[in-house]
Amino acid sequence: MPSAEHQNSTVLTDDELRTLDAHWRAANYLAAGQIYLLANPLLTEPLTAEQVKPRLLGHWGTSPGLNLVHTHLNRIVRERDLDALCVWGPGHGGPAVLANSWLDGSYSETYPDVTRDATGMARLFRQFSFPGGVPSHVAPETPGSIHEGGELGYSLAHAYGAAFDNPRLLVACVIGDGEAETGPLATSWHSNKFLDPVHDGAVLPVLHLNGYKIANPTVLARLPEDELDALLRGYGHEPIHVTGDDPSRVHRAMAAALDRAVDRIAEIQHAAREEGEAERAPWPMIVLRTPKGWTGPAEVDGEPVEGTWRSHQVPLAGVRDNPEHLLQLEDWLRSYRPEELFDAEGRPVPDVLACVPEGSRRLGSTPHANGGLLVRELPIPDLDRYAVPVDKPGASLHEPTRILGDLLEQVMRDTSERRDFRLVGPDETASNRLGAVFSASGKAWQAATLDVDEHLDRHGRVMEILSEHLCQGWLEGYLLTGRHGLFSCYEAFVHIVDSMVNQHIKWLKTSRELTWRAPIPSLNYLLTSHVWRQDHNGFSHQDPGFVDHVLNKSPEVVRVYLPPDANTLLSVAEHALLSRDYVNVIVAGKQPCFDWLSMDQARAHCARGAGIWEWAGSAGDGREPDVVLACAGDVPTQETLAASALLRRHLPELAVRVVNVVDIARLLPREEHPHGMSDFEYDGLFTTDKPVIFAYHGYPWLIHRLAYRRTGHPHLHVRGYKEMGTTTTPFDMVVRNDMDRYRLVMDVIDRVPGCGVRAAELRQKMADARTRHHAWIREHGTDLPEVAEWTWTS
Amino acid sequence: MPSAEHQNSTVLTDDELRTLDAHWRAANYLAAGQIYLLANPLLTEPLTAEQVKPRLLGHWGTSPGLNLVHTHLNRIVRERDLDALCVWGPGHGGPAVLANSWLDGSYSETYPDVTRDATGMARLFRQFSFPGGVPSHVAPETPGSIHEGGELGYSLAHAYGAAFDNPRLLVACVIGDGEAETGPLATSWHSNKFLDPVHDGAVLPVLHLNGYKIANPTVLARLPEDELDALLRGYGHEPIHVTGDDPSRVHRAMAAALDRAVDRIAEIQHAAREEGEAERAPWPMIVLRTPKGWTGPAEVDGEPVEGTWRSHQVPLAGVRDNPEHLLQLEDWLRSYRPEELFDAEGRPVPDVLACVPEGSRRLGSTPHANGGLLVRELPIPDLDRYAVPVDKPGASLHEPTRILGDLLEQVMRDTSERRDFRLVGPDETASNRLGAVFSASGKAWQAATLDVDEHLDRHGRVMEILSEHLCQGWLEGYLLTGRHGLFSCYEAFVHIVDSMVNQHIKWLKTSRELTWRAPIPSLNYLLTSHVWRQDHNGFSHQDPGFVDHVLNKSPEVVRVYLPPDANTLLSVAEHALLSRDYVNVIVAGKQPCFDWLSMDQARAHCARGAGIWEWAGSAGDGREPDVVLACAGDVPTQETLAASALLRRHLPELAVRVVNVVDIARLLPREEHPHGMSDFEYDGLFTTDKPVIFAYHGYPWLIHRLAYRRTGHPHLHVRGYKEMGTTTTPFDMVVRNDMDRYRLVMDVIDRVPGCGVRAAELRQKMADARTRHHAWIREHGTDLPEVAEWTWTS
Repeated sequence: MPSAEHQNSTVLTDDELRTLDAHWRAANYLAAGQIYLLANPLLTEPLTAEQVKPRLLGHWGTSPGLNLVHTHLNRIVRERDLDALCVWGPGHGGPAVLANSWLDGSYSETYPDVTRDATGMARLFRQFSFPGGVPSHVAPETPGSIHEGGELGYSLAHAYGAAFDNPRLLVACVIGDGEAETGPLATSWHSNKFLDPVHDGAVLPVLHLNGYKIANPTVLARLPEDELDALLRGYGHEPIHVTGDDPSRVHRAMAAALDRAVDRIAEIQHAAREEGEAERAPWPMIVLRTPKGWTGPAEVDGEPVEGTWRSHQVPLAGVRDNPEHLLQLEDWLRSYRPEELFDAEGRPVPDVLACVPEGSRRLGSTPHANGGLLVRELPIPDLDRYAVPVDKPGASLHEPTRILGDLLEQVMRDTSERRDFRLVGPDETASNRLGAVFSASGKAWQAATLDVDEHLDRHGRVMEILSEHLCQGWLEGYLLTGRHGLFSCYEAFVHIVDSMVNQHIKWLKTSRELTWRAPIPSLNYLLTSHVWRQDHNGFSHQDPGFVDHVLNKSPEVVRVYLPPDANTLLSVAEHALLSRDYVNVIVAGKQPCFDWLSMDQARAHCARGAGIWEWAGSAGDGREPDVVLACAGDVPTQETLAASALLRRHLPELAVRVVNVVDIARLLPREEHPHGMSDFEYDGLFTTDKPVIFAYHGYPWLIHRLAYRRTGHPHLHVRGYKEMGTTTTPFDMVVRNDMDRYRLVMDVIDRVPGCGVRAAELRQKMADARTRHHAWIREHGTDLPEVAEWTWTS
Repeated sequence: MPSAEHQNSTVLTDDELRTLDAHWRAANYLAAGQIYLLANPLLTEPLTAEQVKPRLLGHWGTSPGLNLVHTHLNRIVRERDLDALCVWGPGHGGPAVLANSWLDGSYSETYPDVTRDATGMARLFRQFSFPGGVPSHVAPETPGSIHEGGELGYSLAHAYGAAFDNPRLLVACVIGDGEAETGPLATSWHSNKFLDPVHDGAVLPVLHLNGYKIANPTVLARLPEDELDALLRGYGHEPIHVTGDDPSRVHRAMAAALDRAVDRIAEIQHAAREEGEAERAPWPMIVLRTPKGWTGPAEVDGEPVEGTWRSHQVPLAGVRDNPEHLLQLEDWLRSYRPEELFDAEGRPVPDVLACVPEGSRRLGSTPHANGGLLVRELPIPDLDRYAVPVDKPGASLHEPTRILGDLLEQVMRDTSERRDFRLVGPDETASNRLGAVFSASGKAWQAATLDVDEHLDRHGRVMEILSEHLCQGWLEGYLLTGRHGLFSCYEAFVHIVDSMVNQHIKWLKTSRELTWRAPIPSLNYLLTSHVWRQDHNGFSHQDPGFVDHVLNKSPEVVRVYLPPDANTLLSVAEHALLSRDYVNVIVAGKQPCFDWLSMDQARAHCARGAGIWEWAGSAGDGREPDVVLACAGDVPTQETLAASALLRRHLPELAVRVVNVVDIARLLPREEHPHGMSDFEYDGLFTTDKPVIFAYHGYPWLIHRLAYRRTGHPHLHVRGYKEMGTTTTPFDMVVRNDMDRYRLVMDVIDRVPGCGVRAAELRQKMADARTRHHAWIREHGTDLPEVAEWTWTS
């Protein structure tokens, strides 16, 4: 390995070098100790097999590099009194970050039983990757963390999210060269085209090339230097290289590199903030090349380990059974000279702590990593100002998301000083009819502009890039540091972030169990341009399965809303924006939709989450219904009401009840979801023995999965989307999927016993209407006039 | 816009320029015609509002650029007799690709009713984005296509997949600058580090910078030229720039650029193939900068349209109602001078067709885009050679994926000449115990190597990169062009490609309905390192929801297998590898697992997909069971058998039946899945009235969603993973999720009426065992010895 750049740098005095190295050695010792030791934490006696954990679990390979970065961040934070946060991309290197937060005292302040002494060190070691202890990765349990490094790819997006609207914050971000191969990370580099040097903080990427993944070299580590340099400059960065395996030289080079990077950041910010510089400058970054498993065993059983992929997890695996491994482990641990690093009580000596900052400047104690401490209530204006007037149901049409856009405009305006609200989306804010927000804030953009552009704004808080991964990652970072936001997305393509929302839900689930973590604003999705209205695009854009996906996850975190019109959308959006620690999924159309409920009715309906719409059925006055027409979602609601109207007209003697469900988790049993309704309530809405024809926005079996325990379940018949999609008209879509009004009426007749001759006639009439639809559409390419012109008349 | 580079190139004669331009104009005319016209296709009479479609749907903006690329690919394919395929990243520009395949005759050969004359042109126009017609995007229905451009991000990965092991193939790939912002595309550039210039074909990326997405400028189009150039060189490419808006100049520049690129590719291939050059060379690529919506309306209603995002979909939207728009449309269409391009019968004139290649050289007719035509049966050796011997159940342990690895090694070996099988995975082939394959093929790698590396091979067919997106995209491209493969992945992280598998399933569903598309090899997943065995990693790595995800999609395409041991894994893997047009999901562990079935038994069991294991229960001899213990998955099977053993020992009078399910879709009704079983069969296995305690690998409600229609459903009680995860031992994982043997026995006792005093005692014993587990694990960090040492004794 070539020697370090800047090796002759004189940034560090010899004394500083000595104390930094002491801190680093201490962190390395503590990281290895967590992986291996059950007892004898200070090695005050010879190591025995019984003092070694029976199951050796964890990731050593990345830990020394993370420790190096942490040590040097400590130094510069302390020296310059920086407000800093670090995102640890290789978060599977949990031992490193835990070691550092124990060293800086944050760990003991967060978990008082893990004291900063020998007793606490023994606990720190034992609990690591131990049942009932702490996970092997950086996790919510880890002080100072906002990022789990298990599913790689999102560190840099999280770092930018944390930096947005935090003008005094420096967000360092360690990116492993394995993670750097992922798609989300590869595009995250372009985030710098969206970072406002005036209102945002800085992100300092540290690309850590230790050369290997689990079992292979990494692509970036094996590029010729000039090719890698071109790539990083192409990403808009000015790379500073630090390379080496000699600790002293690397310390000097790393200190110089950090000084240079922080100086350069200060220059860029000064130019933008004080001198009005509007040109995007290349931001500094550090390329750190050090060996994987650095300072660990060089060879094991004759195979090279240090500097290879073999050090990825546990370099010495046979310690309990193999005396040679045990000796090697003891030699390795003693190579850090723990007796110089910790006093007799196991407390770090002053030299070790010389670089550590104070109080909330410590990376393990920054409030930015516990964003709930910083959060302010979002100002939501009175919904009545934005509500559409509804004197009677179905008399007018509005585009629900456009109405929501007016509300969001006001939220955007009311946060223009505070700057703690952002709207993200993959190039679809206008397409999704939320364009009103642009009058309160433009779209963040630091690249070149042309006269023809609209709404681009160097200081904008609407974020658009054609990457759902970046939208999600930015927003997660923003929320985790205590701010608010909404992600508007085409419904089908939100599956692109399925795995990311999994991880965020897992994070929230665990965080909720930690009393020291303050609740953060919820992650709010507005899924629009949904499955039923993909007129321009067709089958590839038709997928309502995200709801199914999130409902598999922890019920204490997940909320799903299907508002049927504009005012109900306003109500659920307000609820979501004010909530904490949830993932709220709101599915709502952008196409003109009948207004069913006044604002007051909408509020009441959404508060209940599901309710009888007496005016829409024919079973009023407490009359027991013959059949229940249930619906969830805007298009299903429209078809259900049209079916109800047909039944009222043609079979007036049939008592029809219409039930609308906004909050889909209400269908679950109470024991399975906090919003689940009691059987008493469920039976009151849906009956226990009457046919229920349920028109649902998504895959029909989801409703069965939610309601299978209910008494009335054998009488439940669900219609929904069943992958019968293509480029076609709105009504043809519901016909293809058997969710149209005519089919619903036929379903009623097929399931209500003894409907009689008139019912049979009506059934035939409905079948004929479907046939007429098919002929008409083939000829005209449009929907039947009777459908296109239909309105509800109560 | 600056003028074209290479504008003085003399590659083209004036005559060639004239005919190329004629072809391009014809394609542009036909693209616009599809979006707008219902009748009067040749504009032989003045255009009336009634001749315009009532619903204007489609994407004009990208179409002229795609047409330009297609025209010039025609030229060079014809001139050099190339074997070429093109992947159209902006596949939402369906009108362009349809226009070209109509021009080259492929369309009429595929769909004889759409003739290459005025009648056919009218049909071509009418059917586009018209109900019952063809989708607005490039889709399976489009001749010459392997890529739907709806969910952007995968074009370049598909192109590489097509090029692997196709040494004579040139795969051009148009990448839109919108798509270029996505994560998957951003990392796809690095695919060139995996392309073997000896055995693989070439990929020629054409980055089309038309400057805008739906509503915003694109990042790459707004980078300074030197920054973009650095980026592309950093990606390992040699960019050739073509920029302009003057058609003649752009034609000349584009022809010269393609000549240069194809020359350079030939040089690289010659050096590698003939001269043994082993150094990776920068591959050429083209950066094409032309206006969005080029040649369309410059302005509409006073707003600039050509060259802006406003031309993304339909530039003139009000044609039926706005006479001015109608006039503008007619002017626009006539600007292509259709009367010069088509004869009186509507056939393209010879000048238009001068550039078009012949037969299967046409991009619309290449067999590589209908890979089923090229596929050869995969040689699978006799499974008995790889089977583990099983004289009696549970007497031995094997790592199932390691056994499969031996089989795959042979498949890899047997295809070393044919080179039509690849194994892909995100750096996990060895971790997933499939390392045996390396003795038959190394890992593809064209970057630098070091002495310490293992199994890297410039000609390898094992593909490893830390990007599930690339693994999936490469494999899709490989399969769609008629080859075979397997994707091995950590179970939790396969969610990263949820949206990609959605799109592939949609592609297969539609393809199966097209008689001209020959079936292609199935997409096979081996999901391992599964939810129950994440000892090193914990909660972030625990997610079994991919099965739920795929089971939402078209049942004719999706197959899910949960083999309980090594031999059953061999059997389902053979079945999957030989199948066509499916997505097969196989979930199997890599940890030591009891061998339950001999190879013959495994074959028979997998053929049935679900069956009674008489030897494992106590209800043999046709005895009616008191309770059914059902299981699916390796860990659930082990816990179920352990529970059965406890019941046999302690409650011998209880008749227990054990049912194992391998093929999870068998639980569905016959009408809902081709593998679904009849009620007769289901009732025969599970009874209609006895309690069924079902231990399932994933989320328990999935089993309810599959089985809710069955008569016995009210008696079905499912245990599975319910998000109670962390870093812990294998047995603690099942205890935390209430799927352990003790809990299952308690479930039986709670549900079988009248079990008596001994049952109550057993129940207490089980509860005590769980308590003992909790105490033991806190103390020792390992599983109870009675669990760790348990074996089945029949």
